[in-house]
Amino acid sequence: MGEFDLIRRFFQRPVRRAALGVGDDCALLAPGPGMQLAVSCDMLVQGRHFFPDVDPHLLGHKSLAVNLSDLAASGATPLAFTLALSLPLADEAWCAAFSEGMFALAAQHDCELIGGDTTAGPLNICITVLGEVPAGQALLRSGARAGDDIWVSGNLGDARLALDALLGRHPLPPALLTTARTRLEAPTPRVALGQALRGVATSALDVSDGLLGDLQHILDASGVGACIDTSLTTPLIAAYADMLGSEAIFDRDYLRQCTLAGGDDYELCFTAPPQARDAVLQAGAASATPVTRIGCIEAHAGLRLVDAAGEPVAAHFASFDHFAD
Amino acid sequence: MGEFDLIRRFFQRPVRRAALGVGDDCALLAPGPGMQLAVSCDMLVQGRHFFPDVDPHLLGHKSLAVNLSDLAASGATPLAFTLALSLPLADEAWCAAFSEGMFALAAQHDCELIGGDTTAGPLNICITVLGEVPAGQALLRSGARAGDDIWVSGNLGDARLALDALLGRHPLPPALLTTARTRLEAPTPRVALGQALRGVATSALDVSDGLLGDLQHILDASGVGACIDTSLTTPLIAAYADMLGSEAIFDRDYLRQCTLAGGDDYELCFTAPPQARDAVLQAGAASATPVTRIGCIEAHAGLRLVDAAGEPVAAHFASFDHFAD
Repeated sequence: MGEFDLIRRFFQRPVRRAALGVGDDCALLAPGPGMQLAVSCDMLVQGRHFFPDVDPHLLGHKSLAVNLSDLAASGATPLAFTLALSLPLADEAWCAAFSEGMFALAAQHDCELIGGDTTAGPLNICITVLGEVPAGQALLRSGARAGDDIWVSGNLGDARLALDALLGRHPLPPALLTTARTRLEAPTPRVALGQALRGVATSALDVSDGLLGDLQHILDASGVGACIDTSLTTPLIAAYADMLGSEAIFDRDYLRQCTLAGGDDYELCFTAPPQARDAVLQAGAASATPVTRIGCIEAHAGLRLVDAAGEPVAAHFASFDHFAD
Repeated sequence: MGEFDLIRRFFQRPVRRAALGVGDDCALLAPGPGMQLAVSCDMLVQGRHFFPDVDPHLLGHKSLAVNLSDLAASGATPLAFTLALSLPLADEAWCAAFSEGMFALAAQHDCELIGGDTTAGPLNICITVLGEVPAGQALLRSGARAGDDIWVSGNLGDARLALDALLGRHPLPPALLTTARTRLEAPTPRVALGQALRGVATSALDVSDGLLGDLQHILDASGVGACIDTSLTTPLIAAYADMLGSEAIFDRDYLRQCTLAGGDDYELCFTAPPQARDAVLQAGAASATPVTRIGCIEAHAGLRLVDAAGEPVAAHFASFDHFAD
């Protein structure tokens, strides 16, 4: 199977919205009138972002999901994406499963593959996603104001729990591993929530490197500080413990590390003024996405952690950095 | 140097045209009124597209150049690009040189870096480029008609000559190697020519895998055949031989292979009706780009090669395929 056969068989599908899709030098696309184009790009590298033996169907899903998550964090509606794929071999079974996983998620979001590149080399998947958002309505990192609530979607920490279990660092009962592993390998991009938060949230981003590190980007861009109630950031863990009839299955500090600095969550963290609480809850309900209020933005710089009683919590959690010493 | 330091120091620059550049979840961009967005994506892998010891300044140039070449082939005006970079190490000197080479070419084309991704891993560079073209005026592969002339810009074969010399497959005198190597390592995307050909050319693409293989894409997409005068496709080689006062420095078949199936040329191959010959020459002059008429489109399928006397030339040249057996 040659390069062009591979593209035709697994990656070329008719486009409906784009003016021109895969197969020419460029694809052609036009955002709607009054719309800005939202553009983001994520690269996944074997051994760094996924295990060599990962299910290619799930990998296809995740490669697109992490990009759609960036559109979600901007409140944009997905339009199209390009895929650049470096593959050691033109493996038909792998390509079939990968493309199925990718296209299944793409179909859910009416997001079209419009172009890309295929080359031989170490397994590397680079997707650039294009969305549209009404001009001036994108959710940015720079809009948080003192007094705003801080919210997160869904649950944090599951992906890290799964990763540590798969690496043999921490035991995880099989029933929990299955659930956690799905969250690691097939995250759900919060696209509908992001769109519902336009005009409601003052800032937003997606949590990919860990909550504390990512929230700090909002604080830096907005010139503010924050206080987080760490007892509110562990809803999934609590649910897990309930399922097992025990709260003591994990060390409390370890759980806190997973939820505050776990990474690979692909949940949205966003801010909104207190008078918008009902609107936020409605946005969550309308998009069938749980949302939890976990803290508030403060005028002075810095990120404070407290427990349920308001007492300070010490934190020494490192956010993920690809080139950290 | 951590991931975000690296991005800030080498890859974050203020944007002028985009509404939002590097540093948020998505960049924001709007093509002008009546414009379609042209999107293309190329991935460069170490050991496959470039030597491990290549000058990073040149690599930065080439990584963007091969993408701009796709915009050129569509007749689009560059707007912006994203860069996803997988790096074994956060090497400051390498990043500085790479980004300088890339931004120097970007500045020439007023094309902004608006986002991307940085990760640790085997050296891999993935750029997605965005341009704009008046709706309906993009140069496609599907527009060639029987009777059209076939043209190429610049010269073909230099990059292959350089590659073979660097691999020790074929000797090349130092003066020629310097010139040829520049064409391999720092190709010139024919952006101005592509724009000048809007409304003139009936089809176009950029020659990256070799003339014959790439021209076949036009023939397939347009449902036509072609006849090429192979004596017209070796202008650079002839110039080289003249420089050395000898025409016999290379085997004729080898030269033909370089020009017809060399690859990495990043010249434009395009078609236009005979009555547009003056317009094509004017487009070449206006963009300071040599253009050469090398054949014509025929109604029946197939790609025929002839010599200057019109006699058939046998060809067994393979175009580049990343997964060919």
